[in-house]
Amino acid sequence: MRAITQRSFGGPGVLELTEVERPRPLPSEVLVRVRAASVNPVDAGVRSGAFPLLGEPPFILGWDLSGVVEEVVPGVTRFQVGDEVFGMPFFPRAGNSYAEYVAVPSRQLARKPAALDHAHAAALPLAGLTAWQSLVDAADVRAGQLVLVHAGGGGVGHLAVQIAKARGARVIATAGADKHDFVRGLGADDVIDYRSADFTEAVNDADVVLDAVGGEYGPRSIRALRPGGLLVTIVDRANAELRAATVAAGRRFAGITVEPDHVGLEALAALADAGKLRPHVEHTLPLAEAAKAHHLVESGRTQGKIVLTV
Amino acid sequence: MRAITQRSFGGPGVLELTEVERPRPLPSEVLVRVRAASVNPVDAGVRSGAFPLLGEPPFILGWDLSGVVEEVVPGVTRFQVGDEVFGMPFFPRAGNSYAEYVAVPSRQLARKPAALDHAHAAALPLAGLTAWQSLVDAADVRAGQLVLVHAGGGGVGHLAVQIAKARGARVIATAGADKHDFVRGLGADDVIDYRSADFTEAVNDADVVLDAVGGEYGPRSIRALRPGGLLVTIVDRANAELRAATVAAGRRFAGITVEPDHVGLEALAALADAGKLRPHVEHTLPLAEAAKAHHLVESGRTQGKIVLTV
Repeated sequence: MRAITQRSFGGPGVLELTEVERPRPLPSEVLVRVRAASVNPVDAGVRSGAFPLLGEPPFILGWDLSGVVEEVVPGVTRFQVGDEVFGMPFFPRAGNSYAEYVAVPSRQLARKPAALDHAHAAALPLAGLTAWQSLVDAADVRAGQLVLVHAGGGGVGHLAVQIAKARGARVIATAGADKHDFVRGLGADDVIDYRSADFTEAVNDADVVLDAVGGEYGPRSIRALRPGGLLVTIVDRANAELRAATVAAGRRFAGITVEPDHVGLEALAALADAGKLRPHVEHTLPLAEAAKAHHLVESGRTQGKIVLTV
Repeated sequence: MRAITQRSFGGPGVLELTEVERPRPLPSEVLVRVRAASVNPVDAGVRSGAFPLLGEPPFILGWDLSGVVEEVVPGVTRFQVGDEVFGMPFFPRAGNSYAEYVAVPSRQLARKPAALDHAHAAALPLAGLTAWQSLVDAADVRAGQLVLVHAGGGGVGHLAVQIAKARGARVIATAGADKHDFVRGLGADDVIDYRSADFTEAVNDADVVLDAVGGEYGPRSIRALRPGGLLVTIVDRANAELRAATVAAGRRFAGITVEPDHVGLEALAALADAGKLRPHVEHTLPLAEAAKAHHLVESGRTQGKIVLTV
């Protein structure tokens, strides 16, 4: 099968289209014919060697995928050949989705939402589960709560805004002025321009703050929370100082790393099919142009997901 | 850390107690100090080379475990240091539980039921999830249904009887006469001696048959089912002839391979804490006696689980 591999750590140029053996699914797994794989910032870190989650090259990058079940190992009941599925199997261990075929444990997949094509479904798992596991599993956001989402126009943020709204929360987002229309279109009740306004003056009673920015946003976010409110960060997970300051101020702290989970995938798919959740895809490129996709992701100038079609 | 490893495929004698490096948990994972690891028949097949799920030796055997969270990688919110947990991580890929420490994705663990000690909790995941995924995920057994469980005194069967009863079903089990008291004690409404009686004469209207025996039990079980009833087999998963015969008779067929899933583990733990589910442990042995444990499992003369204490 065709797959993107690399023989050394380095810039996007190390990514090569090669011919490799098709993976063989084990008991409890299915073989998925990948139709789309999305590129996440973590992929670039693994490629460059900054986050060597997969050890030394050679390896196949990528976790997010949407595709079609090609083969079902007897013993699997959740899917049949021909079913459309999506997921982020094995994260953060063996990557594999920049390829024509992937062998996947059946409970690390869910049915692709019918409302989304493969490119949009592939854009959802890693960023969408990050938002879901932050706002639902960790924060248990409920109707009537106030949720502040930093970088509401970003990869995780734009999904978090939609999920918080779907849970019945009031949502305020921070974003650059150029993204305000986009973020309001996602359902945000209010958008704060992070360049011209101080969000701590506008918000001091949030039940939950979701921080995907880091740096000064963490400590400042403490002041945006009501007593007992929860700061959820997907960047400063290991920041003991921030955790201590949050707790000392009478607020709660949770750092989140995303993890495969069919329960969350099924919830995301249901929201997508209800018309309440749609990832923003900015570019789709063929698999062979993975290096160009990485250049785009690393440029920091893209507004939505970059997806490889396979 | 201490771990059981093997340098070649072979009999129980290949299992050696060795000193190996402690695993390092990745983001989204916790490090578990294993307190007990149970021995499943599949472990013996991997050890001997009959089911080479882990490739060539050396490797660490074992999936079932119960233990204590020793380290939490920042970003994990489901557990804290000191929590007691159980699971069957990574099955059927990397085995690892015959060891002092295992690195485990947080969503492949659940809290150990308080009602069970580590030895009993370690006996639950693989056999218990097999029963749960058969009777609940695949068969959706409901109150008032009739469930026939073959080998109701066996490793999966004795848990299946309890789960089916907890769902409100009427349960008939097959078992040897020496196990009838045990199986009735689990809550079975009726027990059929497989040596002296023909279960197809006693039952012809089961909603679900769970077959952990195989051979002639599969085809004969079709006759025990009502029209539209479901034959669930955990042995003849790939038996296309049995599947075709079942469907031709107007019954349904499902083959099951167990798979890690926190949802099922949480359900099993809740049943255990409600006093409705208890695995039968026949022997506990220290980790160093893994070879003896494998001898016992392969003898076919044990009635309950064999557990290694670590």
